Amino acid sequence: MQKFALNDVTGTTWTPADDPTAWVLIAHGGGQHSQAPGVVARAEHFVRTLGCGVLALDAPGHGGRPADEAATNEIRRRKAAGEPIGPLIAAMNAERAAQAVPEWRAALDALAITTPVGFWGVSLGTAIGVPLVASEPRITCAVLGLLGPVDGAADVRVPVEFLVQWDDELVPRADALALFDALGSTEKTLHANPGRHVEVPRFEIGSAEHFFRRHF
Amino acid sequence: MQKFALNDVTGTTWTPADDPTAWVLIAHGGGQHSQAPGVVARAEHFVRTLGCGVLALDAPGHGGRPADEAATNEIRRRKAAGEPIGPLIAAMNAERAAQAVPEWRAALDALAITTPVGFWGVSLGTAIGVPLVASEPRITCAVLGLLGPVDGAADVRVPVEFLVQWDDELVPRADALALFDALGSTEKTLHANPGRHVEVPRFEIGSAEHFFRRHF
Repeated sequence: MQKFALNDVTGTTWTPADDPTAWVLIAHGGGQHSQAPGVVARAEHFVRTLGCGVLALDAPGHGGRPADEAATNEIRRRKAAGEPIGPLIAAMNAERAAQAVPEWRAALDALAITTPVGFWGVSLGTAIGVPLVASEPRITCAVLGLLGPVDGAADVRVPVEFLVQWDDELVPRADALALFDALGSTEKTLHANPGRHVEVPRFEIGSAEHFFRRHF
Repeated sequence: MQKFALNDVTGTTWTPADDPTAWVLIAHGGGQHSQAPGVVARAEHFVRTLGCGVLALDAPGHGGRPADEAATNEIRRRKAAGEPIGPLIAAMNAERAAQAVPEWRAALDALAITTPVGFWGVSLGTAIGVPLVASEPRITCAVLGLLGPVDGAADVRVPVEFLVQWDDELVPRADALALFDALGSTEKTLHANPGRHVEVPRFEIGSAEHFFRRHF
């Protein structure tokens, strides 16, 4: 595990002992960062089982980057007041995605990656992932999910494994299914599991591994 | 691949070179039989990758067993007349399941199976599988799907991987999701793929393999 930095963008890389045969990009969820436990567990699993490198970037306002305190405070205020936070989070996600997509592409350039590249990111990671996967031809497959409709989904054409939490308290089931339906990919497969937003079962790490192996 | 017979019930078994470490039961779909290509492909894959034995039985009215010509003719007549066949098939499925469940249990007895046992069956295979898995404690995990609500789903308590075809022309999407919801299992995971009833993608064989490996 090594720290990664490019201009003011921070992140983390993991590399295998031998030359990586592929790379997986991991985009963390809202409020997390590139060394959150779930990111580290996935990264270490993918490196060990796939012999790939892993790159995780801190999203704008997250991890080693200046926090967006105004946004954080506004979410707290709305929660305390019992006001809906969905529209605010969707707007924030879109703003962060617009900033993050060129950051990810610059990081791929900086690492001079020429292997197959897979993407893994749910929730905020999917808000960033949809426009990134749609616009970056080096990415050949993606695990997405835990999000409702976002612009550009029809432009995603690579194979997708899509995660849905069946009792998601943040993303209504119908919204998640609508994003799955909107993806332009010919091969897309939906994995739904009981539980709340952050309760994706551990066995989905193995499923993502098999998905990447199929497409690398 | 060996022929299996017990009283008037016919079927097929597959066994590995060494003693099987587990058994998988494969219940075929309507109109198929225990040596249909999809059954053989799955059986050979499971034996090779899991070191298990596989037992497939011909359902009542299928394969080596006397055909139910009255039922077949009535389905043909309704299709030709543009009449709905769903209710008739549901009734026939229920009748066949009631007959098949004791046949499967007798076959388990006859083979004196003491290893972990998994079940794989969709469509008619799930109509039989739901009451079988609910009543047979030797079965510890099951791949089900491609069917709407059936009695006894709440009594299924073992881990389930559940297949849905997103554009199923025989089973409305909402009906398939309703059966998934009705299953009593704590661990259940839904895999949905684009395509019609018989177009389950080949990669789901590998997914079922990983599911069985997790639970054996």
